[in-house]
Amino acid sequence: MSFSPLIRHLIDSLRILPGVGQKTAQRMALQMLERDRSGGLRLAQALTQAMEGVGHCKRCRTLSEDEVCEICLDPRRDDNLLCVVQGPMDVYAVDQTGFRGRYFVLKGHLSPLDGLGPEAIGIPELLARIEQGTFVEIILATNPTVEGEATAHYIAQLLANKGLVTSRIAHGMPLGGELELVDGGTLAHAFSGRRPIVL
Amino acid sequence: MSFSPLIRHLIDSLRILPGVGQKTAQRMALQMLERDRSGGLRLAQALTQAMEGVGHCKRCRTLSEDEVCEICLDPRRDDNLLCVVQGPMDVYAVDQTGFRGRYFVLKGHLSPLDGLGPEAIGIPELLARIEQGTFVEIILATNPTVEGEATAHYIAQLLANKGLVTSRIAHGMPLGGELELVDGGTLAHAFSGRRPIVL
Repeated sequence: MSFSPLIRHLIDSLRILPGVGQKTAQRMALQMLERDRSGGLRLAQALTQAMEGVGHCKRCRTLSEDEVCEICLDPRRDDNLLCVVQGPMDVYAVDQTGFRGRYFVLKGHLSPLDGLGPEAIGIPELLARIEQGTFVEIILATNPTVEGEATAHYIAQLLANKGLVTSRIAHGMPLGGELELVDGGTLAHAFSGRRPIVL
Repeated sequence: MSFSPLIRHLIDSLRILPGVGQKTAQRMALQMLERDRSGGLRLAQALTQAMEGVGHCKRCRTLSEDEVCEICLDPRRDDNLLCVVQGPMDVYAVDQTGFRGRYFVLKGHLSPLDGLGPEAIGIPELLARIEQGTFVEIILATNPTVEGEATAHYIAQLLANKGLVTSRIAHGMPLGGELELVDGGTLAHAFSGRRPIVL
């Protein structure tokens, strides 16, 4: 036995969501059908509107339905600082920390094996944005993975000799972490990046 | 900073899905927007079709867009056996075991404190279904929770003196379980329900 065609189609469609397998999709589909059909219809409408209406901010390349996003338009932000991240989710994460400069969103990281070179991830647009801006410091906040490091390094090289400070977010112990549990690479970074205690 | 209105609305709408919190909803929304817009649109369409098109089988009350579902129409199934379950998901689970009788789907379990009495969960429809059928045995496969047990007990009382066998699915050790890890109630059931070994 299997579900009826419409339910089966809904279950299959739900599986495009990250982290949703067959069993979770079944539970989602049946729960909506049994308890929250109006919620399901609202979700359908929100999906359609977002998929059709959301584009990219032409200045920072983050996801937005406006031509220029809220952050790029905000006059209270610091035009000296540009934070370069790998995706729109990272903008949200960095902004939670209280950073109040501008952003530039790459399309992921360099990955030559997958055919993703500088053009594919938006490096030319980044350089153009930096040319147009009045930035003093470019903060490279790509992920601390091999690919993220390589991408940051590549951008830093391109920006050398342009009279800009290029910085990389610090690597070290996460707050609340335990030395015995953290991986060796992180601990090595924490040691080499040690700072004098100012009393 | 927060996301643009359309994205925010999509994130809020995704949170009606069971097990999806703020962070997961963000990840789902941004991943669809960044990588799979056509998948997002297909999901929207599947949702609309299912929410508007799926009703309940008038015979067994499971979810189906047909007036009478596939299982109820299948002539190869055993008309002597009726399995009573709490929801459409349980039909799927029981059918996986190879059971080939008929089903009746309650709307959950009795819950007097929440105002869910026999009428609310479909007991009158169950009795009508049994009257119309040619069942010999009614298998009560509600969940092994306090409410599920109470519901099974209530139905068994209603069916007493109708010349039917009323049975309850067995409680005991799950296959592959370990005695030292299982809870006391389950182990007690496993002991009281022990069976002679036939060699």
